[in-house]
Order: sequence, then C-alpha cells, then structure tokens
Amino acid sequence: MDRKTLAEALDNGRAEQHQFEALHYARLTDPVSGYPRGSVVMPDGVVIPGYPSIARIHSLSAGLREQFHGHFWAEEKIDGYNVRILCHQGRPYAFSRGGFVCPFSTDRLPDLMPLEIFDAEPDLVLCAEIAGPDNPYLEGSPPHIEADVELFVFDMMRAGQPGFLAQNEKMRLIERHGLPATRIFGRFRPADTEPLRSLILQLDGEGAEGLVLKAEVDATRAKYVTGRSNVTDIQVCSGQLLDLPPEYFTNRLMRLALFVTEHGQQGDADLERSLGRAFLSGLDRAVERSRDSGRVDHRYRCRFREHRNALHFMAHMAATGGQRVRMAPGTPRAEDGYWVLEFERVFDRMTGTLATALSGAIQFD
Amino acid sequence: MDRKTLAEALDNGRAEQHQFEALHYARLTDPVSGYPRGSVVMPDGVVIPGYPSIARIHSLSAGLREQFHGHFWAEEKIDGYNVRILCHQGRPYAFSRGGFVCPFSTDRLPDLMPLEIFDAEPDLVLCAEIAGPDNPYLEGSPPHIEADVELFVFDMMRAGQPGFLAQNEKMRLIERHGLPATRIFGRFRPADTEPLRSLILQLDGEGAEGLVLKAEVDATRAKYVTGRSNVTDIQVCSGQLLDLPPEYFTNRLMRLALFVTEHGQQGDADLERSLGRAFLSGLDRAVERSRDSGRVDHRYRCRFREHRNALHFMAHMAATGGQRVRMAPGTPRAEDGYWVLEFERVFDRMTGTLATALSGAIQFD
Repeated sequence: MDRKTLAEALDNGRAEQHQFEALHYARLTDPVSGYPRGSVVMPDGVVIPGYPSIARIHSLSAGLREQFHGHFWAEEKIDGYNVRILCHQGRPYAFSRGGFVCPFSTDRLPDLMPLEIFDAEPDLVLCAEIAGPDNPYLEGSPPHIEADVELFVFDMMRAGQPGFLAQNEKMRLIERHGLPATRIFGRFRPADTEPLRSLILQLDGEGAEGLVLKAEVDATRAKYVTGRSNVTDIQVCSGQLLDLPPEYFTNRLMRLALFVTEHGQQGDADLERSLGRAFLSGLDRAVERSRDSGRVDHRYRCRFREHRNALHFMAHMAATGGQRVRMAPGTPRAEDGYWVLEFERVFDRMTGTLATALSGAIQFD
Repeated sequence: MDRKTLAEALDNGRAEQHQFEALHYARLTDPVSGYPRGSVVMPDGVVIPGYPSIARIHSLSAGLREQFHGHFWAEEKIDGYNVRILCHQGRPYAFSRGGFVCPFSTDRLPDLMPLEIFDAEPDLVLCAEIAGPDNPYLEGSPPHIEADVELFVFDMMRAGQPGFLAQNEKMRLIERHGLPATRIFGRFRPADTEPLRSLILQLDGEGAEGLVLKAEVDATRAKYVTGRSNVTDIQVCSGQLLDLPPEYFTNRLMRLALFVTEHGQQGDADLERSLGRAFLSGLDRAVERSRDSGRVDHRYRCRFREHRNALHFMAHMAATGGQRVRMAPGTPRAEDGYWVLEFERVFDRMTGTLATALSGAIQFD
C-alpha cells in the first residue's frame, strides 16, 4: 500500500497506527483499496490481508451440492483464535484477527512451532489457530488439549501476494518443516455426502468442532460444524447468558436442531441431557458465585516466556477490557520458568440481575 | 369517567372506541385519570380498571422477607389468559387484558361458570384465568385440563369502585355461588418459608405454574413460579425461537437456575434432560415442518356455541393477526353442537431462516 493511500486511511479513521516494541505498523479498521478490515500494513508498505470470514452451511447434503462444483479439501476446524504469523527483520510476530500484534501469541511462538521455516521462507505468512485451556481470550478449548495452548497451521500466504498458497504447496511446506497443522481429511467431491457424513459424525463423537471445506480451483470455502460443538459453546458461555448477544445462543440452538434432524439424532436422551446441563451448569454456577461473592465472572490464566510481554498484554487488557477485567494480585508471577498471568472478567448484566433477584426485590416483566 | 375526560382521551389517542354487537365501549390504550391501560369505559361511564401487573419474586425466602410485612394469602397461579367478566343490561361479557370484548370467552361463559351470580350481584366484576388446550391464544395449557377450556376466578371487583374485594368476601361469594376458582392454599406469614417451600415443590411436581401471594391488609402482591413452569414455557415455544423476543427464553432460563439453586436441584438429570428436550423437541419439529411444508407454524383450535361469535372472532383475528394467521378451509364447521374454528399462525422468521438453511445456502455469522 502506497504512503498516500495509508495516510488518507489514517486521516479518515479507516486505519490506526500502532507500535509493538520496535515495530511500527498500521491495522485497517475498515476496508481500504480492496483489503479487508483487520489487514496489517507493515513498515515497508507490504500488506498482510485480514483473514477472510468463512461462510457456514447448515445442511451438509444440500450445502455440498449448492456450494461446490469440483474437488475440495476437508480439514478440521479448531475451536481457538485466529492468528497470522510472519517474520519481520528477524523477529516473529503473531497478529490477531483485528490486526493487532498479540503479545501473548507472539511471546509463545518459540514454544508452539519451529521458527526456522522463516529462514527458508522469509516472506511466508502462516494462518493458524491457537487453542487450549490456558489462553487469555476464549473460555473453551478442544478436549484433546489438556494444558497450556497449541498451534495449528491451516493456511499460508506470501507477504504482498494475493490469496492463499495452493493446498499441495501448503501440505509440502507443513511436511518439510514439521509444522503443527490442522488435520487434513482428504480430497472430496460434492457427491461424497456419505463419507463426509461419516466424518462429521466421527468428529462429533470426538468433541471436535467441525470441518472447513476448501475448493481446489477457486476461492470457495465453507464451514460445517458438529452438533455437539453447539452444546459445548452453550456450556462454556451459559454463565454469561445476559452479557452475550442473545443470538449467540439462538444461532447455536438452530444449528444443533438442523444437525440433529439431518443426522437422525431426534430424541437422543444423552444429547438432550447434555444440552440441558450445558445451560444449567453455567447458570447454577453463576447464581452460586453471585450468592458467595456478589459477582459473576470467569477466570483466565495464561503464561508468558518474557516478563515484558506479560506487561504488554496487561496494558492491552487495561486499554480494551476496561473495568470488567481484574488482574489477580501479584500478577504476573514466576512459575516453572514462565510468567503466569491470571485475571477475571466480570459479567456486568449477570452480576446486576442476579444481585437484584437474590435480594428479594420484585420485578415487573 | 366523565364524558369530557373520555372525549379528550379519544382525541389524544389514549383511548379507542369499540363495538361488540349492541355494546359500545371504550378501552384505554394509555393510562387516563389514574386508570391503567386496558381499562374499559362502559356506556354509562363506569370504568372497569385494567387488571394490574403482578410483580415477580425470584427468591422465595428473600422475597417473602422483603416484600411482605403481615399475613398474606397464597393462591395458585394458572397458565392461561386473563379476563374480566361482568354483566351489562342482562348480557355477560368477558374483556381481555387489553380491554377488548373477547368473542371466544364471551361466547363460552355459559359453559364455564354459573352466570346466576350476576342476578344476585349485578355490579360484580370477576377476574379470571381461562386455560386449556382448546384456546385460541396460548400454545400451552395446564396438564390437568385434558380438553377444551376451563375458567378459574381469582379476584373480584365492583364496577365503579376501586380495588379488589377482600379475600374473605371473595371466598364467601365463590362458595355461595359455586364459582370455579383457583386453589387457595391458605394464609401465611413472611416467616413461613418452609411450608411455602414445600408447597411450591409440590406444585412443581404437579406441573402447576406457581403461586400468587396477596397481602391481607394492603395491595402488595407477588408471584413466584415453579422451576418446571419455565421448562414447560420453553417446550411450548421453542418452535418459535426466532419469532419471540430472545428475553422470552433468557428470562425463563434465569428463573429456572434461581429456582434450582434455591431448592437444591443442581445436577438433577431428569431436569437437565427435560430442559434439553424442551428446546430440541420444538426445534426439531420446526425443521421437519419446514422440510415437509416449507413453513413453520402452530395450529390452534377452539369451539364456539354461537356461529356469529366465531365470525366475530375471525374478524378480530383478520384485523390484528395479519398475514400470519391462516384459517383452516371450511372454518367454522359444526361439530357436536358447537362451531369449531381451526387456524394456523405462521412464524415468519423461523420459516425464512430454516428455508435458507435447508436450501444449502451459505451464511456469514
């Protein structure tokens, strides 16, 4: 992006200038010159495009038939947060979906992947999901990640070039450099409803989130999630029932019913119980927290290699999280060679509503 | 209400003039002269006050302690719709909460209660709930009403006089005239948490909706519902998930969790399953309806004594229900000495969202 375009975007409030230690960069807060929101403009003007949203299909059989017209690849969709990873002047950085340098992800990169790939491929941009129980953004994590966080590469770009690398090129680089990557289940055609149905039911049983389908010859992509991933999302967030947009819950209930009816799971007692428990366990815990402490919150924990990155992260939370984030006393504290950060996020509406209800106050509907 | 006040209210859009056969009346669409919305002004200027909202307590023990300071009566809360019944020039009428003559309720009064009470007490206004599977307004009904509808008196007023009749006077009139009435469980004090806890758990087990508590000496009232009534409401309305305000569901989930934690029902597997089933059964049925017929709807059925009242009702639906109500072909039809009316109400957002999802279309969240 040339300097004039960027300067105009900054003037118009379509881009913001940021700094992370020695790196000065801009992130787009609105589309500019065909680059989407979340794109990053590096000091040399090279643009790292924002990672595009992937649309969802709600019916496997009809979705395959309507959306795909040639071969496509099926890969695992991981329940984590999206980063774009690149190396600039010998230092690796991880950018969040919104285009910020993420101090946590950047700090942990040496633990999560072999960084030597950037010696061989200096212009490579890796698109990856970071997931696990000890992450500072998400309440849930995939069941197979028992501790800390892991990283899963699922797409690659080259800085300054449009589009993603072809599937075979991506697979070759993953293989050659031993990158951690999402599972790739193979190459399918739109008529392969039955193998894909078996696959999604297997993923449903494993507690995996779902599939991302990527056309081989064009840019068509679609995601299709398991029924159980909807129950898991509800379970993880039911304690925030009044603090999330209600569509968070209604969308997942709709998706679950579409999955259940497509795959003949109507009346499954275990599924019914797990859905009821998903709502009640989080809500009951919220009521108990309100009764015991007067507030409803969620505790997050993550760990850093470098003390200064923990401080960068805390400054970022203070700037964006406001009153709702409370760092634990003594944070960050040293443990096993890391700096552990713990904080709570308070859910204001749950806190207020439950305090009123438990006080014995009356309420008109 | 004097003519001038009524004329001004009509001019200002705070009242509307209506006619039901020979009866000309006005209903207040906003408060006027201290009378609430839903009040009815009869031809002689006598005002039948709108039935007041009853506030809710969410905690039994704290609610009793905070809201009541002397004796109060506990009565059953019935899951139906509210009517005010009076006799004018020898004809009985039932007015809806909004202040309309309800053609259905008015038609069925001779089946539902002994009308001779109005010979002895011509100025009496009965406040009652009408409930049952064959009613034209509500999707659900109490489990003990197997067919048609029943009527339950729970309050009395005298036309032109403020406030409700005292509890003893009401009970005396119910007894003397053999009126169908809500169950009255007795007289309690704020310290009677334990007997009321036993009572609400008994009602929860029966599938009853809950309690209305009415102070003996002042106008304090509060309602407190069973946990299971929330599950029932969700069950009955989950097929309309996207067509009801999301608070319909979130409020009931909150109430359920407050009930569960107050009464030690955390982790109850049957309750969890019933909640999951409440969501899934209605949603699965909606998906199946969409797949089979292209639309999601609910079918209502009710019966009238008089053909002309069925037509009045159909005209009222056509005026207020719009495109969403479709009368069944041949309605009303004669059956067992009644005129049976059947109609469907279409849920537009469920219909549209499911049609899109099942078509295989993609959707961005």
